[in-house]
Amino acid sequence: MDILVVNPNTTASMTEKIGEAARGAASAGTRIIAINPKDGPPSVEGYFDEVFAIPGMIGEIQKHPAASACVIACFDDTGLDAARCVGEMPVVGIGEAAFHMASLIAGRFSVVTTLSRSVPAIEHNLVRYGLASRCARVRASDVPVLELEVLGSNARHRISEEIECAIRDDRAEAIVLGCAGMADLAAALSREHGLPVLDGVACAVKLCESLVGLGLSTSKRGGYQVPLEKSFAGIFAPFSPSGRAS
Amino acid sequence: MDILVVNPNTTASMTEKIGEAARGAASAGTRIIAINPKDGPPSVEGYFDEVFAIPGMIGEIQKHPAASACVIACFDDTGLDAARCVGEMPVVGIGEAAFHMASLIAGRFSVVTTLSRSVPAIEHNLVRYGLASRCARVRASDVPVLELEVLGSNARHRISEEIECAIRDDRAEAIVLGCAGMADLAAALSREHGLPVLDGVACAVKLCESLVGLGLSTSKRGGYQVPLEKSFAGIFAPFSPSGRAS
Amino acid sequence: MDILVVNPNTTASMTEKIGEAARGAASAGTRIIAINPKDGPPSVEGYFDEVFAIPGMIGEIQKHPAASACVIACFDDTGLDAARCVGEMPVVGIGEAAFHMASLIAGRFSVVTTLSRSVPAIEHNLVRYGLASRCARVRASDVPVLELEVLGSNARHRISEEIECAIRDDRAEAIVLGCAGMADLAAALSREHGLPVLDGVACAVKLCESLVGLGLSTSKRGGYQVPLEKSFAGIFAPFSPSGRAS
Amino acid sequence: MDILVVNPNTTASMTEKIGEAARGAASAGTRIIAINPKDGPPSVEGYFDEVFAIPGMIGEIQKHPAASACVIACFDDTGLDAARCVGEMPVVGIGEAAFHMASLIAGRFSVVTTLSRSVPAIEHNLVRYGLASRCARVRASDVPVLELEVLGSNARHRISEEIECAIRDDRAEAIVLGCAGMADLAAALSREHGLPVLDGVACAVKLCESLVGLGLSTSKRGGYQVPLEKSFAGIFAPFSPSGRAS
Amino acid sequence: MDILVVNPNTTASMTEKIGEAARGAASAGTRIIAINPKDGPPSVEGYFDEVFAIPGMIGEIQKHPAASACVIACFDDTGLDAARCVGEMPVVGIGEAAFHMASLIAGRFSVVTTLSRSVPAIEHNLVRYGLASRCARVRASDVPVLELEVLGSNARHRISEEIECAIRDDRAEAIVLGCAGMADLAAALSREHGLPVLDGVACAVKLCESLVGLGLSTSKRGGYQVPLEKSFAGIFAPFSPSGRAS
Amino acid sequence: MDILVVNPNTTASMTEKIGEAARGAASAGTRIIAINPKDGPPSVEGYFDEVFAIPGMIGEIQKHPAASACVIACFDDTGLDAARCVGEMPVVGIGEAAFHMASLIAGRFSVVTTLSRSVPAIEHNLVRYGLASRCARVRASDVPVLELEVLGSNARHRISEEIECAIRDDRAEAIVLGCAGMADLAAALSREHGLPVLDGVACAVKLCESLVGLGLSTSKRGGYQVPLEKSFAGIFAPFSPSGRAS
Repeated sequence: MDILVVNPNTTASMTEKIGEAARGAASAGTRIIAINPKDGPPSVEGYFDEVFAIPGMIGEIQKHPAASACVIACFDDTGLDAARCVGEMPVVGIGEAAFHMASLIAGRFSVVTTLSRSVPAIEHNLVRYGLASRCARVRASDVPVLELEVLGSNARHRISEEIECAIRDDRAEAIVLGCAGMADLAAALSREHGLPVLDGVACAVKLCESLVGLGLSTSKRGGYQVPLEKSFAGIFAPFSPSGRAS
Repeated sequence: MDILVVNPNTTASMTEKIGEAARGAASAGTRIIAINPKDGPPSVEGYFDEVFAIPGMIGEIQKHPAASACVIACFDDTGLDAARCVGEMPVVGIGEAAFHMASLIAGRFSVVTTLSRSVPAIEHNLVRYGLASRCARVRASDVPVLELEVLGSNARHRISEEIECAIRDDRAEAIVLGCAGMADLAAALSREHGLPVLDGVACAVKLCESLVGLGLSTSKRGGYQVPLEKSFAGIFAPFSPSGRAS
Repeated sequence: MDILVVNPNTTASMTEKIGEAARGAASAGTRIIAINPKDGPPSVEGYFDEVFAIPGMIGEIQKHPAASACVIACFDDTGLDAARCVGEMPVVGIGEAAFHMASLIAGRFSVVTTLSRSVPAIEHNLVRYGLASRCARVRASDVPVLELEVLGSNARHRISEEIECAIRDDRAEAIVLGCAGMADLAAALSREHGLPVLDGVACAVKLCESLVGLGLSTSKRGGYQVPLEKSFAGIFAPFSPSGRAS
Repeated sequence: MDILVVNPNTTASMTEKIGEAARGAASAGTRIIAINPKDGPPSVEGYFDEVFAIPGMIGEIQKHPAASACVIACFDDTGLDAARCVGEMPVVGIGEAAFHMASLIAGRFSVVTTLSRSVPAIEHNLVRYGLASRCARVRASDVPVLELEVLGSNARHRISEEIECAIRDDRAEAIVLGCAGMADLAAALSREHGLPVLDGVACAVKLCESLVGLGLSTSKRGGYQVPLEKSFAGIFAPFSPSGRAS
Repeated sequence: MDILVVNPNTTASMTEKIGEAARGAASAGTRIIAINPKDGPPSVEGYFDEVFAIPGMIGEIQKHPAASACVIACFDDTGLDAARCVGEMPVVGIGEAAFHMASLIAGRFSVVTTLSRSVPAIEHNLVRYGLASRCARVRASDVPVLELEVLGSNARHRISEEIECAIRDDRAEAIVLGCAGMADLAAALSREHGLPVLDGVACAVKLCESLVGLGLSTSKRGGYQVPLEKSFAGIFAPFSPSGRAS
Repeated sequence: MDILVVNPNTTASMTEKIGEAARGAASAGTRIIAINPKDGPPSVEGYFDEVFAIPGMIGEIQKHPAASACVIACFDDTGLDAARCVGEMPVVGIGEAAFHMASLIAGRFSVVTTLSRSVPAIEHNLVRYGLASRCARVRASDVPVLELEVLGSNARHRISEEIECAIRDDRAEAIVLGCAGMADLAAALSREHGLPVLDGVACAVKLCESLVGLGLSTSKRGGYQVPLEKSFAGIFAPFSPSGRAS
């Protein structure tokens, strides 16, 4: 099966790293197609950036109608609801993926993300998904997204410190890493701290494989109905609900 | 004071009607500037359309840095969080405005909106705002947004029927009309059914006037911090966090 | 329009200060009628005092049937439900007013009130209104209500200290001052701490003006129905549901 | 032990009936002192009446400092918080008593009360107590409180009909009767409908006996602290926090 | 009346101590029958032990069909739901008993239990019962169950320290002791710390007496229906829903 | 990898059917080991039966320490917490598995289970897992568990009728089948009703494969710590926390 892994930001090096993480998690028969939009911000840090990342991301998804499933590789599950309206293939956000998986192996977990400005969006998602009661706390490590790409930065150390606090102060039984760019750190941090540390990219790939394997697709009742056909104006004229771009 | 009223869809006739409703609610010293983006869908019906309405809407808001406050005139409060990151002026969504006002005059209210596909987004907002416990039910009238613009349509009748059901079955003490395009119906429906019927556009204008009058602006701690400056790519290159479009 | 601002305690100097705050927030065409009952406690500090403040307060409200709206100027929204049963004019408590307004400009807020004995009543209101999820914490400054009236007291310093804690420990994005007697401190504390500080009296005046401007009145379905006519006995014989005091 | 059973309304015949119900539930060594205030409304039907029932009720409680415990015999637990501030004896409302007892013998229960105007107050109590999740629904039988005192009225039939609905539509496993005046109906309705039917008066007497037997008294930390001494004005001058009425 | 007090573990000395505590709380006419199963673990510390304690406990309960009520004397209310399916007599867990009683005398309480591994089960119960909002925190004292039986151990000191923390950090107004083996400490700890300290065994005995006195029995609608008759296999062949052991 | 699929009841024909369903869902490299205890009830219908199913089930799990993961194949996730204490392998209940998977493809789902007596246990699980807000309603089809094994029974028809009701009355966007014995019906019912219908057995197998593939194991902090070693008495002497049965 083909799983589309969409990095909603435009930083190709990060797409590559995410693709690697996804391939590391994928089963033998799964092909990972890691892409990013050419339109939008180089990193998604907070509500403002999200807005300009999603249209391009949706456009990319529409270009792959034959994919079996789709992973949204941004921890605030940017544009997840809209992506589920595109066709019937299952779409899984890396945030929700990690929350659901953590709920299966731990009574409560804490999230360690990048910047404090991203915390409220993650908290809102937890409330919406119903899993806020399973999350002890969402913690900011004050590491900007793209610093995770910089060799020799202090990023890994800061994240490790927050995990320490989560174990001591939140009674966390598992840790969810709150950024796609942290995917490569999970295994080592798990060994270091002696508790499960989850990376959302890997979790989402596995959940997509599972949904496809079960023959399950997105429900077309309720909020994820196929969008009504209409013509968009201006810069969005090439886009459309049916994806038949001019 | 100048209040920006942004209709996130591109239908100018609807912007005009919303502007009228806003002016009808505004105080003497308030100037209503009703605008809509030139980029995006002609109506916002569900998660998919939202995505293509918000960037243009944010761009329009950035063009009016001197406005005192801003109303987002779409009932699912499209792009509200991102709009709050732009500058410090208060930004109020017409959905939240109506929910807060209804909570001051009734123990519980029901919402009557347009299509069933829009119900989940409204329910999610209620949960996030904390006011889900005040809302008895979100009801779809199965009236598409633009049919509200058509003279002689069955729209008003369908909405009235749902209000009847809300009073009888939900024990609703007030009704919130769930679409900016219903703004002109509130007063008559209130008289007809003998309970408060709230239109979000008017409510939002009043809340904006109130916030400005109180000297209150959006908090710049937490999720509404000023966006980090970064260059956007592709069709969004002219946009930027600071609004200094190239 | 005439807005009745009722201080439920009998301390006239506090009524005057509250009246000043209300006038400072009111629009040009609004007349503030600041009153207090002659029956009851000199300050409302906890559940016990409330009981003896409300009957006199209701009696005062009944004396002003032509008022356009009414503000209950005690932060635990003393007697709010009963006041809404009197006639149809909108009635707004200063506690709920501040909670709703804070929700429009901040993701989460903390409350700084007077004594620890008042904290549970405020917490209960937040739960009832549905806004508990928006409030990070209700903090007591251990400043008695009437000490706020004393020049040179330590009150302002103690409140400022609690705001400091709320920012650091609660991740508060805005502060709600939890006593009508703190109305004059909001602006300076906001400048000092660099985040919105809300005073409920001003917020409630603005919400009353808004409701009146929108033509909205209290729903007479559900709990706020006009009270059934009945004769009260003993000291309450002069009072009655219809307000036709003997 | 002496248990004070306070009917907050002034209708002596109802006090007598409540006293009978209390005595029927009391253990051998328990003396029931059934009283009502001389000041206030003849029945408590909604938020407005409550206000004028509570001061007299508190005054009556203060006259019995040697009582071991106190029952508030009105189903909306009128003035419960204030009563708990008077001295240290346990105070139990008949509403909360029935909710707690029903939670011990059934997964979920429904309430059948008198008038629709009383429903919101009961619902708010359930939310505050934390037991709303155990209550399937609060139902109004449209029987006014004092009609329960009228021989040959339709009251019992209406209540029985609502119980039928609660079993069928709410999946209720037990029924709580929502008015002190229904105390004499519980046993027969339980036999008739084949499920537990709880009367709050009897439940509250038993919980008072239990608390006294366990040597437990109201906590004096938090909201139930002894009221600060202060002089009340006007008609309340004879009242005071310490109960040393002039 | 006969109240069955079942200690679900097999440690007879603990059963004796629990029986003493129960007798200390019981009224004159109540006979306490303290028992424990002969099959199962010597102490119940966490989810695993529970499983092997419940079948023997159910078997013991079935041997006493003439008992008026039953107390489950383990703080995580081990097997409570199943025990309620056996016959119609009321069954009360010591955990829920203490939570309900504490809710009547305090706005919020904290629990002090034995080991950290037992905390999640208690938290889950609080959520299910609906009383989680009344509990500030569940604290582990790190005292193993059977160490409470050892004279001269450090157990009492550790528990007292946690109570100190609960008062200071949780704003607890009452303390619930979270283990049947702590029953003898409640009175002294209450005096020492100046707030109510509740022991679940005594609370449960009183609630059983109350339910029996009120003629209330477990509802046989919903989850507590009489089990369907079926033959069990293997080591459970002697057990059966109807208790007619072979 | 080897996945243990434990049917907690003793009916071998049902174990076989569940094993088939599991194998149908398993990936190429996965071996399904379908087992059932020899001790306990032939079907698990409600709280009582659970108690006598779990010990045998735990004993069976302990016999397979080399398994990679374990599925509890009873829809009320019987003994899930205890099973997670045995070793470190992931353990997934079929109820939770279906709830989590349904949350990824639908905004809200309804459950259709067997008997009304099983509904409360499922509702409690949903509350504990945090996913109650995603479930519109748990419906009983009044089909006993073992009737699902009878050819020509009315079972499938009754289940289909309830699905019809769930779509119409609950606004369900997906259906979760609430019994391991319904595993073979999911695909056909999905086609018939035009929305996703989920079987928990298949979902749980996929989630186990995912967890194992991700190298994730049950957290040994909190409630799932390895049980303290102790000797069990009576019929449970052969069992022990470490599984070293005598």
